[in-house]
Formats: sequence, structure tokens, C-alpha cells
Amino acid sequence: MLEASPPLKTKALVLFSGGQDSTVCLAWALQRYRLVETIGFDYGQRHHIELVCRMQILSRLAADFSWASGLGEDHIIDLRVLGQISETSLTSDMAIQMADNGLPNSFVPGRNLLFFTLAAALAYRRGITALIGGMCETDYSGYPDCRNDTIQSLAQSISLGMDRKYEILTPLMYLDKAATWRLGEELGGPDFTELVRQHSHSCYMGDRKQRFDWGYGCGACPACELRARGYAAWQNA
Amino acid sequence: MLEASPPLKTKALVLFSGGQDSTVCLAWALQRYRLVETIGFDYGQRHHIELVCRMQILSRLAADFSWASGLGEDHIIDLRVLGQISETSLTSDMAIQMADNGLPNSFVPGRNLLFFTLAAALAYRRGITALIGGMCETDYSGYPDCRNDTIQSLAQSISLGMDRKYEILTPLMYLDKAATWRLGEELGGPDFTELVRQHSHSCYMGDRKQRFDWGYGCGACPACELRARGYAAWQNA
Repeated sequence: MLEASPPLKTKALVLFSGGQDSTVCLAWALQRYRLVETIGFDYGQRHHIELVCRMQILSRLAADFSWASGLGEDHIIDLRVLGQISETSLTSDMAIQMADNGLPNSFVPGRNLLFFTLAAALAYRRGITALIGGMCETDYSGYPDCRNDTIQSLAQSISLGMDRKYEILTPLMYLDKAATWRLGEELGGPDFTELVRQHSHSCYMGDRKQRFDWGYGCGACPACELRARGYAAWQNA
Repeated sequence: MLEASPPLKTKALVLFSGGQDSTVCLAWALQRYRLVETIGFDYGQRHHIELVCRMQILSRLAADFSWASGLGEDHIIDLRVLGQISETSLTSDMAIQMADNGLPNSFVPGRNLLFFTLAAALAYRRGITALIGGMCETDYSGYPDCRNDTIQSLAQSISLGMDRKYEILTPLMYLDKAATWRLGEELGGPDFTELVRQHSHSCYMGDRKQRFDWGYGCGACPACELRARGYAAWQNA
């Protein structure tokens, strides 16, 4: 779909949660790499429905999009240990509120450090050195583990610690949610944005009963608000 | 016990496995910090007996050594997910042999990256920013995640990812096993080296039936050989 596609590289591993961002990231990777494996983390998140959505997205991508033919093995990692370490609103029934330091209390300290380190350990065994994730500095309430400085420092630490040169690619790092919808459209046209709208999941509350023009969710949590605003900005551009 | 003890700092978290190195590290920390918490990882290691040994060491330290009065809470983290990610001799029944790249196949890629990242996440909640581990470049068969460059790069990544300044201290980084016995003696005298000898565990095979002058083990695996050599070098110095 891209006007000028770069030549395909070999293999990549995408951190794929089933959210809007990682779904667009996955499309981005599928159009750049011959083989794209996916990894997801089950950490007892309240929006566990995400893990169901991600399976639907994977099967629909494989069935309906010719550029998704490079989809390889999917890996689900049991990371419920996170709940053991950190009680936060993502893993408990607390309301989503801002903590004293300005971070949402959904903050699991350094979560993305763990995700990428585990992904790299798995990639090591599978001969993959390109890790791809949907982190972005723009929309994530200032999560420090989504910042580019953090991610690139981590790529260096992982490369040193595994004695193999890894790269971490974050194509959405400087995009806002409207730009992510736009990128999805560029990558896969209206059929793909429709897939994102219908099947990707953002809502912190795990709500998939209420339907909005931007997809399903509670419509009130910060993730839904962000998604709604981005969708509106994209539609009205 | 140290001739010139530095003033006590506040709090530290020690990666404490129950092995010789981390036991000496723990003594080192206890003589430098007012409060020392410990963290251990249950990753289905074959030498699971390590986890039993570590509890014995903790209780004996608290009972018998006045300088261990700062011992705080102990945390055991369930990390059996490592077995899901990587099949290696530490987590399976394969023989301990060298892999093609010169790394022992006990190598879980980036294991220490994970250990420190999880420790930092726990430390975040407990108001601790000093992490201490017994990694050393000297004896560890070239594990890249034990090297100082890796560990210090990781300290930087963790500090960025959690937006809090962490330091990682590795007092054994440039010591060999003989020097570690010597450090143990300096820190806690013969009573402490006796505790290390009797209760710390190194053997990859989890053997605690056979008794040697340097402690218990199979006497044949690389970890036992290393321990035996270091003990002899210390005794004969």
C-alpha cells in the first residue's frame, strides 16, 4: 500500500498487545519484514479482553490482507508476576487516578523495560534482533518508560547483556493518536482502519459492550478519551 | 569488622540467591546500609535447593551476627516464566555443556537484566534506589549480562525508565573466588566464612549430599569446580 516501500528486511518481533497502537505497528512491520513474529504479555491486566482482541486481529490480518502473509508465530508470556510486584490500577480494581508524582497510578514501574527485555530473550532463541513496539512520547501521560531516550538506552543495555546487536524500532514515537489513524490508513487503507476500529482494544476498564464511532469501550477512562479525541481529529482533518 | 567502616547509608535491596557470591554481597551491604532488603527469584532452576539455603542463611545472619541487624524484608519473585522463554541447562535436565558461541548453555539470555529490572520495580514501591548484586566479570564464563558495562548501562536505562536515579553496586565485579572468600573473612571473620562454607549453595546440580572442604555439591559441575579452586587458592595463600 505504501507508495515507495523499502526492500523487505528479514525478521522482526512485534510487541503486540491488541491495542490501537500496536496493531498499527504490526501492519508497519508486516510491510517491512519478511517474517514478523508477535509477543503479548498476560499480566493480569484488567483489560484482559485485550488478549482476546489480539487473537482476532491476528486471524483477520492473516485472512484478509495480502501484505500480512509474513505473519509468523505468536507468543503469549505469562507475566502475572507483575501483579506480585506492583499493585496498580491496571492490575486491581482501584479507580484510575493520578498519583502524587503526576504519573497515572496505572503505572507499573518500568513495564516496558521488562516487556522488551523478555522479548529480546525470546528473540535471542529465534534469531531475531529487530524488536518493534508502539510506544510513543506524545500521548502516554508522561510514562517515562515510553520515552525514546529510555527505549534507546535499553536497546543498548540489551545488546550488551545478550552480546548481540539488537535494534528497537518505535514507529509511533512522535505521532499523536490522529496521526496513528492516518498511518494505519496509509498502510492498509479503509479495510485496515476498519479492523483497527472494530477489533483493537484501548479501554482500561475492559469494556467492549458500548459502541462508539471510534470502536468499543467505556467511553470515559483516559484511554477511551484519548482514542476518541484522536479519532475525531483524524476524521475532521 | 571492617577497619574503617564508611558511614551507614539508608536503604538497599540485595539480589540474594543463596550462592556464595550473593551471601558475601549481603554481608557487604549490611555493613554499609541501615536497612537491607533482599530479593530472590524462583525460576524453576534445577538447583532449587538454593532457595532453601537462602532462607537458612537469612535466619542465621539475623540470629548470630550483630552487624546483620539491618536485615529487612525478604521478597521471593515467581519467575518461572523464564522457563517458558528459554530452555537451558539451568532449567532443564540437559547436561551443562558449552554452546557453539562459547557461552555455557546454562545461559538464560539477559537473565540479570530481568533480575535487576524486576528488583528496581519492587524497589520503586519501597523507596529504595540502591540495588546490589554479586555479578563479577572474572569467574562467570563470560556471561555478558555479568559485565560491568552491561550493568552500568542497565542502571542508566532503569533510571530513565522509572524516572528515578538508581545505582547498581557490584562489589565483587573484579574479584575472583579466592578474593571473595577473603572479602567474606574481612567482613565477618571466620564465623561468617563458616556460614558461607556450610550454607551457601553453588552447585548447578542441586547436590547437597556430598561434603567437601569448601562446602556441599556434586564436586564436578563448573560451579563446584570454580568454588573448589577459589577455596583452595584462598586457603593456600
